[in-house]
Amino acid sequence: MYSKEIEGILSSKKISPGDHIILSRNGTEIEGILMQRPDTGDPNILVLKLKNGYNIGLRFEEESMLEKIKAHEEKHGAETMNITHKGLNKIGLIYTGGTIGSKVDYATGGVKALTKPEELMHKVPELEGIAEIRINNLMSFMSEDISYIEWQEIAKAVASEFKAGARGVMITHGTDTLHYTAAALSFMLKGLNGPVALIGGQRSPDRGSSDAFMNMVCGAYLAAQSDAAEIGTCMHATSSDTICHFIRGTHVRKVHTSRRDAFKPINNRPIASVDPKGNIKYISEYTKIDGDPKKVSAVTAFEPKIALHKIYPGSDPSILDYYASKGYKGVILEGTGLGHGPVSTPHKHFNWLEGVRDAVKSGLIIGMTSQCIYGRVSETVYSNLRLMRKAGAIYCEDMLPEVAFVKLGWLLGNYKKTDAEKMLNENMVGEITPRSEVDWFGD
Amino acid sequence: MYSKEIEGILSSKKISPGDHIILSRNGTEIEGILMQRPDTGDPNILVLKLKNGYNIGLRFEEESMLEKIKAHEEKHGAETMNITHKGLNKIGLIYTGGTIGSKVDYATGGVKALTKPEELMHKVPELEGIAEIRINNLMSFMSEDISYIEWQEIAKAVASEFKAGARGVMITHGTDTLHYTAAALSFMLKGLNGPVALIGGQRSPDRGSSDAFMNMVCGAYLAAQSDAAEIGTCMHATSSDTICHFIRGTHVRKVHTSRRDAFKPINNRPIASVDPKGNIKYISEYTKIDGDPKKVSAVTAFEPKIALHKIYPGSDPSILDYYASKGYKGVILEGTGLGHGPVSTPHKHFNWLEGVRDAVKSGLIIGMTSQCIYGRVSETVYSNLRLMRKAGAIYCEDMLPEVAFVKLGWLLGNYKKTDAEKMLNENMVGEITPRSEVDWFGD
Repeated sequence: MYSKEIEGILSSKKISPGDHIILSRNGTEIEGILMQRPDTGDPNILVLKLKNGYNIGLRFEEESMLEKIKAHEEKHGAETMNITHKGLNKIGLIYTGGTIGSKVDYATGGVKALTKPEELMHKVPELEGIAEIRINNLMSFMSEDISYIEWQEIAKAVASEFKAGARGVMITHGTDTLHYTAAALSFMLKGLNGPVALIGGQRSPDRGSSDAFMNMVCGAYLAAQSDAAEIGTCMHATSSDTICHFIRGTHVRKVHTSRRDAFKPINNRPIASVDPKGNIKYISEYTKIDGDPKKVSAVTAFEPKIALHKIYPGSDPSILDYYASKGYKGVILEGTGLGHGPVSTPHKHFNWLEGVRDAVKSGLIIGMTSQCIYGRVSETVYSNLRLMRKAGAIYCEDMLPEVAFVKLGWLLGNYKKTDAEKMLNENMVGEITPRSEVDWFGD
Repeated sequence: MYSKEIEGILSSKKISPGDHIILSRNGTEIEGILMQRPDTGDPNILVLKLKNGYNIGLRFEEESMLEKIKAHEEKHGAETMNITHKGLNKIGLIYTGGTIGSKVDYATGGVKALTKPEELMHKVPELEGIAEIRINNLMSFMSEDISYIEWQEIAKAVASEFKAGARGVMITHGTDTLHYTAAALSFMLKGLNGPVALIGGQRSPDRGSSDAFMNMVCGAYLAAQSDAAEIGTCMHATSSDTICHFIRGTHVRKVHTSRRDAFKPINNRPIASVDPKGNIKYISEYTKIDGDPKKVSAVTAFEPKIALHKIYPGSDPSILDYYASKGYKGVILEGTGLGHGPVSTPHKHFNWLEGVRDAVKSGLIIGMTSQCIYGRVSETVYSNLRLMRKAGAIYCEDMLPEVAFVKLGWLLGNYKKTDAEKMLNENMVGEITPRSEVDWFGD
């Protein structure tokens, strides 16, 4: 609640939060959307959301005037809802939670998940002009809580949007595991014929400096207008509000805890850049739409008994016995360098060779990736690598450990073990870059 | 062996591999060091190492002339040996193996460790003019095989070099775990009063394109001339042979499997750049030498029962029970984002809150870092983080997971548990950047 005086004026003018208003003060007029007053702070400061997406706090003084210019339409209750103008391209927006769907709890200073996506939508009025958007309020998860069970739900929801007539889909999602979900959708959506943009925010949208607004606008343009039949993340390319990068879902990683440009392409150029005016510039080769978007299907079976495990100095290979004893079907190892683990050490209890050999013999699939993040593993350069390969480790080319992990679970969910083993280091959806291409290492 | 004809000429002129020679051919003279003929390849191609560090293959033709200008001095057998001119600054070179101390096995195409550092030294004649170098042939390990046991040996060897009169030390080391060793030395060497440069090579020094030569030259200049009392890596800053970066040992990571510029500073600017002519340019603040280098000591106790473990979607927190049951004393977690793990998921078997709480109750130290790599963890921004902190996880600021792991082992080896717990997220040797400084995210 604002101060008594302000609430009185708002009530007399029938102005509610969400309405477009003009505040006249000291001879200047400021137009914007009236926001809810934060739980703490000066009750005489009106918070307006300006056209440029920023929130501004304005002191209401005696001579200030308020005028309503457009009412906010309340939309509540429905699990899916349509907003914005008919006649524009149709896109689906799937809401899953995360910081982008959060607001600051001013009592604690922390961030809490919102329950309604409308709050977010109303903060990005630009969306109205971009597409006819159907919202699916699928779930409200912080992304650290998301698992394969949610990936399955999201994949099905994406397929539903396309079947319902969307030509593209955007998904709001927490940033922490956004890249895992992006990889999962890349394998789960078969026959995709439209763009799917995953969008997160590093700052909650009730902060003026939130990156969420621009990411949503750019993501909406991608979903509404791109001819890419690709799944990727759409977030800030730099720390300033200029362009977003659309990065292939199997080649993206969150590499910074807090920056706006935390998502970077790994071993792969971005597919495209997008600016908030809707200019899409393709940067690398991509798969184009060439059929009916409605024909997509979600193949979502997933084997949960898989692990992602890091090798490090002194790490104990007997952890593989633990995984085997717990019924695990496969482990993706994050080796050092080109896919190394200790195999020639004089300290036998640190030697991974026996461990890998035994795990493979007992039926586990052991995939080898690199904790370096950038680059490709190789089974031939060093004799230690050849030994590890001979023990049965499958070298996963230039796949990120996270991607190899997701792929292994999906393969084991949908194929026989022998096929899964064979397919793990074969390219399926762009997750493995041909060896002839130089991998990409920054701008 | 070269062809019969060439071997005949070499023998008649008493030229052996390692000698400085001049090859006259078609009116031009090329000066260099005669290299061993590779096991495969045309036996009529002479391989010379030129002054610029590159190897060149030259066809020996009928009218070619060979002339010996300086003999190669054989140095064999000694565990430590001195090379180069007296009168220059004294530095120690500790040889531990790795690609930088390797050569290609031309029969298999793979890379094998050399046993003698002299082979490497003779390939970098520039070193003679930089310092009086004492070589300690400490061990011959590929770095994936190195553990805390070798860290202890290396730390003691570094202290010995300083006590023997070195003003700086360079260490050749495999690249895979070079940054783990750099972190370990940062904690183990107390009272350091000189520069310690860790040097690796991404290509073995018998390849013309090896990065090892320039890294060694730059490392030798650092050890001989820098006034920094710091431990860091000294390797290519870019993919071309222009400068090396000296990067603080607690803020460096191998981020590419194969590129020459694979080592990048994380959350910290490089200490300095060094070029192969010996120009050292300081880029950030650093600790300067201000006392007797001989007073350094190696504090090497280390608790081996610690683990580094990654949290990922669907990861099973009961792994913490496993670590507890095996007598582990601590686990560094690589959380998602700001230090998250699943704590609000409806799928109870994925919830890490109980797992962390139980592990802490049973006596383990649980440290929280981020798998993002760049940035800082925080226990306050989200309610999930506060829950994790309340369960007992210690938030490790902007420390890399690898550094937090090394620090925890060292703390538990040298302090009581309660002290170790307290010190884990307090800055000791520059491993934690003050919150007031913006973290560093690339060039």
